[in-house]
Amino acid sequence: MIRQIAGGVCAPKGFKAYGVHCGIRKNKSKRDLALILSDTRCSAAGVYTTNLVKGAPILVTKSHLSDGYAQAVIVNSGNANTCNADGVGIAERMCSLVEEHTGIPASDVIVASTGVIGQQLSIAPIASGMDELVRGLTQSAEGSSAAAEAIMTTDTFKKEVAYSFTLGGAACRIGAIAKGVGMICPNMATLLLFVTTDAAISPEMLQKAVSEDVKSSLNMLSVDRDTSTNDTFCALANGLAGNEPVTEEGHAFDVFRKALHAVTSKLCRMLASDGEGATKLIECTVTGAKTLQDARLAAKSVVCSDLLKAAVFGADANWGRVLCALGYSGADLDTDKIDVDFRSRAGVVPVCRGGAGVAFSEELAKAVLSEKEIYIDVGCNCGDSRATAWGCDLTYEYVKINGDYRT
Amino acid sequence: MIRQIAGGVCAPKGFKAYGVHCGIRKNKSKRDLALILSDTRCSAAGVYTTNLVKGAPILVTKSHLSDGYAQAVIVNSGNANTCNADGVGIAERMCSLVEEHTGIPASDVIVASTGVIGQQLSIAPIASGMDELVRGLTQSAEGSSAAAEAIMTTDTFKKEVAYSFTLGGAACRIGAIAKGVGMICPNMATLLLFVTTDAAISPEMLQKAVSEDVKSSLNMLSVDRDTSTNDTFCALANGLAGNEPVTEEGHAFDVFRKALHAVTSKLCRMLASDGEGATKLIECTVTGAKTLQDARLAAKSVVCSDLLKAAVFGADANWGRVLCALGYSGADLDTDKIDVDFRSRAGVVPVCRGGAGVAFSEELAKAVLSEKEIYIDVGCNCGDSRATAWGCDLTYEYVKINGDYRT
Repeated sequence: MIRQIAGGVCAPKGFKAYGVHCGIRKNKSKRDLALILSDTRCSAAGVYTTNLVKGAPILVTKSHLSDGYAQAVIVNSGNANTCNADGVGIAERMCSLVEEHTGIPASDVIVASTGVIGQQLSIAPIASGMDELVRGLTQSAEGSSAAAEAIMTTDTFKKEVAYSFTLGGAACRIGAIAKGVGMICPNMATLLLFVTTDAAISPEMLQKAVSEDVKSSLNMLSVDRDTSTNDTFCALANGLAGNEPVTEEGHAFDVFRKALHAVTSKLCRMLASDGEGATKLIECTVTGAKTLQDARLAAKSVVCSDLLKAAVFGADANWGRVLCALGYSGADLDTDKIDVDFRSRAGVVPVCRGGAGVAFSEELAKAVLSEKEIYIDVGCNCGDSRATAWGCDLTYEYVKINGDYRT
Repeated sequence: MIRQIAGGVCAPKGFKAYGVHCGIRKNKSKRDLALILSDTRCSAAGVYTTNLVKGAPILVTKSHLSDGYAQAVIVNSGNANTCNADGVGIAERMCSLVEEHTGIPASDVIVASTGVIGQQLSIAPIASGMDELVRGLTQSAEGSSAAAEAIMTTDTFKKEVAYSFTLGGAACRIGAIAKGVGMICPNMATLLLFVTTDAAISPEMLQKAVSEDVKSSLNMLSVDRDTSTNDTFCALANGLAGNEPVTEEGHAFDVFRKALHAVTSKLCRMLASDGEGATKLIECTVTGAKTLQDARLAAKSVVCSDLLKAAVFGADANWGRVLCALGYSGADLDTDKIDVDFRSRAGVVPVCRGGAGVAFSEELAKAVLSEKEIYIDVGCNCGDSRATAWGCDLTYEYVKINGDYRT
């Protein structure tokens, strides 16, 4: 029984968080520095961008997580600390500041940065903000919320989620904060996602859970097909729930994976719906594919198509673009067996059967596609595999935001 | 000596063309049916979309070109004849209409369609327009121009080009018409390109020239990364120039390839600059890559990035997005050796050296990026290979066009 609860990253036992405005951003009303901290040392796992150009914080975080343990996460927004001189030195210094102010060894600190690429990140505002940041740490919904706000860039709302679940008889909690919302095509992007849990789980099994989960969560999400240089998804498990530690595959691990996926898939929907300039969430579910890989390729290709995204923005039931995107997806499909439905709260419109168009009401189609959450259901009718991918519509606002992001 | 000349597909000896409005499109002022015809049978070659969902005309054209010869090309715009019942039957009927009106066997006719996917194409308007179409055939710039207009969809200007060159002492000519300009990421897209030449060349060598050429021309072009279902690039060579036929590799074949590439690369620039909603051409040249494949992957990735395209639209020198796109391109690069310049008629702005930012004048950068043709020069400094890719900026107008293309 997985149940949604309040509290974000502070929902699990023993996790505090906070966020402040330290001055990296000029806008004083927007927090720009976050800290998440566990009372005890945690199993820790991470997955990172596959971009060859990697943010300096990723190099430092990878090194700090090499032993499988961590206890704190420090994150700034407003500057990606990427493609600049001495980025690694600055990222290391951020970890040292956490040690100086909390006593947690720098080598147990996860560090991340998000914002503009290629501008020098000054340590001065971060150093000056540490006192207020550490003083504000609290295990409360407000703490998680302040941290979630501090990691936002072009996000229009905070991404927080938490669930409770039961593991070996013990009540456990898992929570997360994340940010998007441009340069998002995680493989793994300037996407950041931090999960906390009080479940007891070994570093190896936590890494396995995270590595598996991204394949059906973040890697199935795209705002603009641009895989960022700074994508980071880290999970911390402090074990304070008191469950028997998960150290191998089996029922308990499966329950943990389900709880983790509840968190990450919920965040994917939130991240997609808040994609830069987006007005609509697009969720594509492909069923009946030959293999899981085929289903994933097909679903991801549909939500990635600029043409389909623009059509959804215009509430135009241009299903030929779905077929087109399926056709170049790389998935092995029988094109004359494909069925496509557009679906939303307003109803369902079958638009394609067996690879060919069927008559439909343009009026109903317009109504269906004018909702905020659009579902595209693709039946391949050539196997048993299924996958879901998340994206958003392509709008004037996306162009506007990205025509003038840096200046 | 390759020299640009007038006349488009009618520049080579023995080629006539024309285009009419037959009624597939409602707008009577826009021609929608084109015919290109050679006085004699031609060596013929083609490359087509790699999309699994293929337009019915492609199936028919492939079959007709299986013997390496053809003599005419019929093309309609306004309907892609794709993903609908009996598409192949309609495409075959179009070829039969050419036979009935000109005597050229249907099996020597190349057929193509472009427009909306998934709507039934009626043969009636095509049949009714044939008389006027065949009567209008002329070997003149006007004939080529009418055909070029008839194959346009969202194109804002006609794409025609022709060159003269010398092959084994004989004066030869090569001409082409093409259309874009959305769903363009040819591999090979609703892109159509028809080349005519009076050079004598065997079908095998013509196919080899075409197949090689697309790797450095059309496959290096992207408007929106959507590989269409109907991409077709066909070349017809009637040999009327009287040169000794090109039947093997060597100097003459190299000269022909250069002439062909002059045509296709020119058209790529025209297609990119007229990309749906585009206000600017983006040409990215990557030099110093380890392999040709690395150079191509890197250059194509830059012109494909929505973020970079939006930044160019906004004249924002956000070079970090160039580095990001290079990093996820799949090319093997030394990220700390990369140099990037933005260049246009207004000047050159070095923005990145050795993978890190360098100080530059924002004023000059704005001026450079406000021109109509933007060049992005990437130096990899790790090898000797180079490649060029073409794209366009991402604008409000792209979203507008594609939010309401079908209705």
